[in-house]
Amino acid sequence: MEFTARQISDLLQGTVDGDADVKVRGLSKIEEGKPGDLTFLANPKYTSYIYSTKASLVIVNKSFVPEHKIMPTLIRVENAYESFVHLLEIYNQIQKDKKGIEQPSFISDSAKLGLDCYIGAFAYVGNNARIGNNVKIYPQVYIGDNVIIGDNTTLFSGAKVYSDCVVGSNCTLHTGTVIGADGFGFTPNRENQYQKVAQIGNVIIEDHVEIGANSTIDRATLGSTIIRKGVKLDNLIQIAHNVEIGENTVIAAQTGVAGSTKIGKDCMIGGQVGIVGHITIADKVKIAAQSGIGASITAEGEIVQGSPAFNIGDYKRTYVVFRKLPLLEKRIKELEQMISDLRQITS
Amino acid sequence: MEFTARQISDLLQGTVDGDADVKVRGLSKIEEGKPGDLTFLANPKYTSYIYSTKASLVIVNKSFVPEHKIMPTLIRVENAYESFVHLLEIYNQIQKDKKGIEQPSFISDSAKLGLDCYIGAFAYVGNNARIGNNVKIYPQVYIGDNVIIGDNTTLFSGAKVYSDCVVGSNCTLHTGTVIGADGFGFTPNRENQYQKVAQIGNVIIEDHVEIGANSTIDRATLGSTIIRKGVKLDNLIQIAHNVEIGENTVIAAQTGVAGSTKIGKDCMIGGQVGIVGHITIADKVKIAAQSGIGASITAEGEIVQGSPAFNIGDYKRTYVVFRKLPLLEKRIKELEQMISDLRQITS
Amino acid sequence: MEFTARQISDLLQGTVDGDADVKVRGLSKIEEGKPGDLTFLANPKYTSYIYSTKASLVIVNKSFVPEHKIMPTLIRVENAYESFVHLLEIYNQIQKDKKGIEQPSFISDSAKLGLDCYIGAFAYVGNNARIGNNVKIYPQVYIGDNVIIGDNTTLFSGAKVYSDCVVGSNCTLHTGTVIGADGFGFTPNRENQYQKVAQIGNVIIEDHVEIGANSTIDRATLGSTIIRKGVKLDNLIQIAHNVEIGENTVIAAQTGVAGSTKIGKDCMIGGQVGIVGHITIADKVKIAAQSGIGASITAEGEIVQGSPAFNIGDYKRTYVVFRKLPLLEKRIKELEQMISDLRQITS
Repeated sequence: MEFTARQISDLLQGTVDGDADVKVRGLSKIEEGKPGDLTFLANPKYTSYIYSTKASLVIVNKSFVPEHKIMPTLIRVENAYESFVHLLEIYNQIQKDKKGIEQPSFISDSAKLGLDCYIGAFAYVGNNARIGNNVKIYPQVYIGDNVIIGDNTTLFSGAKVYSDCVVGSNCTLHTGTVIGADGFGFTPNRENQYQKVAQIGNVIIEDHVEIGANSTIDRATLGSTIIRKGVKLDNLIQIAHNVEIGENTVIAAQTGVAGSTKIGKDCMIGGQVGIVGHITIADKVKIAAQSGIGASITAEGEIVQGSPAFNIGDYKRTYVVFRKLPLLEKRIKELEQMISDLRQITS
Repeated sequence: MEFTARQISDLLQGTVDGDADVKVRGLSKIEEGKPGDLTFLANPKYTSYIYSTKASLVIVNKSFVPEHKIMPTLIRVENAYESFVHLLEIYNQIQKDKKGIEQPSFISDSAKLGLDCYIGAFAYVGNNARIGNNVKIYPQVYIGDNVIIGDNTTLFSGAKVYSDCVVGSNCTLHTGTVIGADGFGFTPNRENQYQKVAQIGNVIIEDHVEIGANSTIDRATLGSTIIRKGVKLDNLIQIAHNVEIGENTVIAAQTGVAGSTKIGKDCMIGGQVGIVGHITIADKVKIAAQSGIGASITAEGEIVQGSPAFNIGDYKRTYVVFRKLPLLEKRIKELEQMISDLRQITS
Repeated sequence: MEFTARQISDLLQGTVDGDADVKVRGLSKIEEGKPGDLTFLANPKYTSYIYSTKASLVIVNKSFVPEHKIMPTLIRVENAYESFVHLLEIYNQIQKDKKGIEQPSFISDSAKLGLDCYIGAFAYVGNNARIGNNVKIYPQVYIGDNVIIGDNTTLFSGAKVYSDCVVGSNCTLHTGTVIGADGFGFTPNRENQYQKVAQIGNVIIEDHVEIGANSTIDRATLGSTIIRKGVKLDNLIQIAHNVEIGENTVIAAQTGVAGSTKIGKDCMIGGQVGIVGHITIADKVKIAAQSGIGASITAEGEIVQGSPAFNIGDYKRTYVVFRKLPLLEKRIKELEQMISDLRQITS
């Protein structure tokens, strides 16, 4: 793919400053730009690079005034960062515009496929599955019986959805994501052998959800594990049975949420956090990485850290003293000596 | 599937109270019951729901005496919870009763399959593999050369078993589970380049073991990594080479056990726990979530927390003081001032 | 496979002590040796086993002088441990010497395969992919469009490489490894809905890298996530977008590295460590398991522990006092009482 500065400027509703016929083929960071690359300048601390970059075309803010001579052609727009992100998105869509059904794939006779789908080789679509329009099912994906997948959703290679689960529209499930494996439910008998409690619920994933590689979301014992609209989950995350995660909450990699916990909307949860089962986290709560949450958080917007976690400001102040503990012990020892001396004097 | 109250009552050896011909098609929680649903009442704190539930059929304890009028038909049994769990199990077995060999699948000519197996499309069964009776191998599963799988075991879509490993009977391996990848064994040379130590042992999984989604159990360098009878592992767990886990031990999600460690039987290990290599954990030990175990635990039934972990009661008492550290420091400062004042007075 | 003591001795350039015609078929630890097994004695603390082992053949150091009668044949070599590791490697290569293209597999017409490759059934090789010589692609592996794989690299069953990524030569990617899934990049809009930032960069893995089961390495937003020559990653590790890991660094299981962080060479990082984004870790740094790294580490060879981490010696001294905190509080209380008493006396 090759585009001229003019074509891109028209797409972004910008204005061209320099050679409008210069052609670009790739996207790069401004400090790594090569001839034929398109890049952008938004953060003022990168400004110096615009005088040295080898890129052929740079998107800049309308307001940008160069202080030295500039080699690349410029496209001036309202917001250079947003325009560049928009271009990334278009580039990505062109790159990943897969269509058609590759062979061999396995599509049950009772499954229903929407229009314009991509079904990669070795993908499996089970009985009575319903697949929306423009869904991309990459190679080696597994869609169990009775699964529903909404329009415009992408399942990358090897994503797996167990039977009876529901995935919304405009979702992205990355490779190795497992939706709907059995929740971890067992009851011990007298010999401490664990009897399985069958997990016959499902997982419901609403629209505009993205789930990272190798994350696991277990099906409910009864009812549904629910991931609300707009949730973004990173890689290697564990969501246990009957959990509910509120709208637009984002969770970083390797965090785990135990069974039946309900997390509010607009929360931001760091990486490697552990959250126990059967609690409630209020809306807009922020949890620092590696924290352990052992009880409900009821105050909206609370920010916590630690294992077990408490208010992040208090935690940071506490940790400052923690690092001085050997010194503190020494001061106590000295006090004890001084007191002992004083008591001898005053006795 | 549709059943009458009488059919279910017969199955559970219960007695019907109300319309014995009412038909049910699904299972639900009592607070979410819809017409056509079967539910149960066991925990007294849910009793109020039996007067408002829309479910058609409720399993209750024999001893239950309603205080108001009840709409649904009741089935009275010895233990409502156990009866319901039993129904879940039957429901689950009917739902997942897959049989036959889907095409295309790959079964080596030298592999042996038992009776009544399910082999999903795109599943791979390697040379000399021996598969027991009634084994369910879902689509995209990989069974390496010389692997042995016992009777009644289920491998969900995309589970992978490397060559030479052994899986017992009545086991469940969830999607993305990896059995028998190489242990992490390298020795540095003079230039600090790491030379691989070939891992030629295997993994042995005994009977009645369940392993969650995307967990990894590495093969031994020599000999075997061993998961004993009745062990239950949650999702995203790492078990390193030459580890042994004792009978009926349960481990929650995202925990990791380093190489050559031996864990006793009947242990309960929380989520996100880390256990170093080459140590021994006694029987019936309990480890709180996010703990780090850096040394052997020799006392049977010990309960520990922290990183590094120690007795859980001590840990909790310690953490209470930890949270007050800034205050403690202030008290020490005040003591120092008071002592200083006193010394001036007494000098 | 069966070999005589003489054949193995010739291979190792050793000398035979005993029956040179004795035949062996397997490798084992000295304490578990059975007739027909080959084992070794290197660590003096295992010496006693050489008098009781049932193994048929034992590799020993040249310098070994038995104190009692020995049943097995001995092979004397310069370094028994290194010779045995060398044999493990040969044994492993023979066991895993897969060749040829199994059917059905999917190889794009525009892909190029080197000589002597193994392509397992249900493996997928995308458009314009370039696969080197002697590459082993196990069943159900996914190689996206434009991917480059170097010579002698092995991808075990179900490893997945997204489009445009580059894997060097002599690498090993274990089952479930995901190379090149999208980095976790979103920007919130006014309604706190997160807009995806397209991730159009790639992952570059240099030569002699090994990556464990179910680890995930995200593609860069722009440019490349880079894993340098000789890096060894264990299982279930998360490497975020635009990270760079220096040569010969080793990382244990379940560790996570956030976006744009640069780790030096020859580092040793324990399991379950979390490292924040946008920082730099110097060469030869060691990080204890479960630590949290919240800021750059600039001193070469620094060893740290804790969350947040600091010098490991200081951490250990601090933790000793931490465990005594309830006692420390008691001592402060006593001091306060004593001071109060003293002030009354002196007032």
